[in-house]
Amino acid sequence: MPSEHRLKRRVQFYETDAAGIVHFSQYFRYMEEAEHALWRANGLSVAPPGSELGWPRVSASFDYHRPLRFEDEFEVVIRVTGRTEKTFRFGCVIEKNGEKVATGSFTVACVRKVRGEPIRSVPIPQDIAERFA
Amino acid sequence: MPSEHRLKRRVQFYETDAAGIVHFSQYFRYMEEAEHALWRANGLSVAPPGSELGWPRVSASFDYHRPLRFEDEFEVVIRVTGRTEKTFRFGCVIEKNGEKVATGSFTVACVRKVRGEPIRSVPIPQDIAERFA
Amino acid sequence: MPSEHRLKRRVQFYETDAAGIVHFSQYFRYMEEAEHALWRANGLSVAPPGSELGWPRVSASFDYHRPLRFEDEFEVVIRVTGRTEKTFRFGCVIEKNGEKVATGSFTVACVRKVRGEPIRSVPIPQDIAERFA
Amino acid sequence: MPSEHRLKRRVQFYETDAAGIVHFSQYFRYMEEAEHALWRANGLSVAPPGSELGWPRVSASFDYHRPLRFEDEFEVVIRVTGRTEKTFRFGCVIEKNGEKVATGSFTVACVRKVRGEPIRSVPIPQDIAERFA
Repeated sequence: MPSEHRLKRRVQFYETDAAGIVHFSQYFRYMEEAEHALWRANGLSVAPPGSELGWPRVSASFDYHRPLRFEDEFEVVIRVTGRTEKTFRFGCVIEKNGEKVATGSFTVACVRKVRGEPIRSVPIPQDIAERFA
Repeated sequence: MPSEHRLKRRVQFYETDAAGIVHFSQYFRYMEEAEHALWRANGLSVAPPGSELGWPRVSASFDYHRPLRFEDEFEVVIRVTGRTEKTFRFGCVIEKNGEKVATGSFTVACVRKVRGEPIRSVPIPQDIAERFA
Repeated sequence: MPSEHRLKRRVQFYETDAAGIVHFSQYFRYMEEAEHALWRANGLSVAPPGSELGWPRVSASFDYHRPLRFEDEFEVVIRVTGRTEKTFRFGCVIEKNGEKVATGSFTVACVRKVRGEPIRSVPIPQDIAERFA
Repeated sequence: MPSEHRLKRRVQFYETDAAGIVHFSQYFRYMEEAEHALWRANGLSVAPPGSELGWPRVSASFDYHRPLRFEDEFEVVIRVTGRTEKTFRFGCVIEKNGEKVATGSFTVACVRKVRGEPIRSVPIPQDIAERFA
């Protein structure tokens, strides 16, 4: 199963701001979009209906190299760059015409959510960990 | 209890688009923000933790008269304009310096959400209906 | 040239809200996304770099029939439903598995933006009007 | 003039996601909202009409400690933590009831945007630098 995914995307108008470029917060959405597509490429969903498992972000960052503008076509390359017992780490490169636009990463924790109980982090189930290997 | 609320707000940068003005979809968020503030002014929450009641939008519309720009200060006036057994109707005027910027409305249905059952519309509880009278 | 476009889309996680469904304001973004794809299908851009023409929304509305949830696949069908000297009117149906999810519309005005001058509405250029015929 | 600002805020419904918490990308908007309020507290705007200066983000990051939920009241504390000839660095703490919710930072570059010329970074004007001292 793949540990990397390449998402093709186009900038939408509502993703731009008054500086005429994609707002910097939007890149985190692009990164997540690609991550969720990687889950699907592995036959999984990050949030299947009824699941008690959740995958909140523990940290997230981006470095911005070039702007993106309305209707620009770009690619979001995401890949698993690390794994601990309870977390995945993803790295992300956003490219346009082969040039780096931005470089990001986030760490995602595996948690169990049961109604009436506090959320707590749990080990990543083996069958999920194997899919991203 | 009030059936009207006036929310003061300032345009944030991430609410603008590459045309240099607030994106038209954002006005629906302003309208909802004012509606939820009206619920709180009535001592209620539209989504209290653990509640089985929900208030999905059945329809929503806006007419746009003037643009809003970054850092503009404006007011969102929301009021209940109608009620049926299972719905509220809200009307909304967005103003800047006393001039109408946009006029909107939405209809909100009262529904009951129980795990494992389909969502169905239900009568608005009497104690809620009275608060908005 | 086409006056109608069909956009295939999947619900992203950041488009959902705490009710577990796509936020009602997001549908206006889906509608605009399809409209801009229709412009491209006609060999045009709604906002080409350097253009003095703009297409602000004059009014917009949606009726909601069914919810959309995370990862749902759906289609946005947009078509020109009317034209005056200075405006286009678009109608939109959002469908999932052949069922209507929502029905929307908006009216878009043609305006000229020149630095230092007030924005004013102008007739739709003939070569643009013809593309959507 | 202050180099720190404290913004009081409440979570809006459209800022939550299907996990029932504020989407992680939203924190970057909170941080920017507080930064722009700091500019105003210093008698400035990050984007005054007609200005050729811009302040794009060069990098941005957040660590997430606790979730925020609908209607939570919280505070965003932003302060200048560093300055070079052409950049500001801001640090940010988000708190709820005195507990840390998240810790973020971003670096903002000063750029000059002239129509028809490429964007290039320039020294921060002295009068702006002094305001944040």
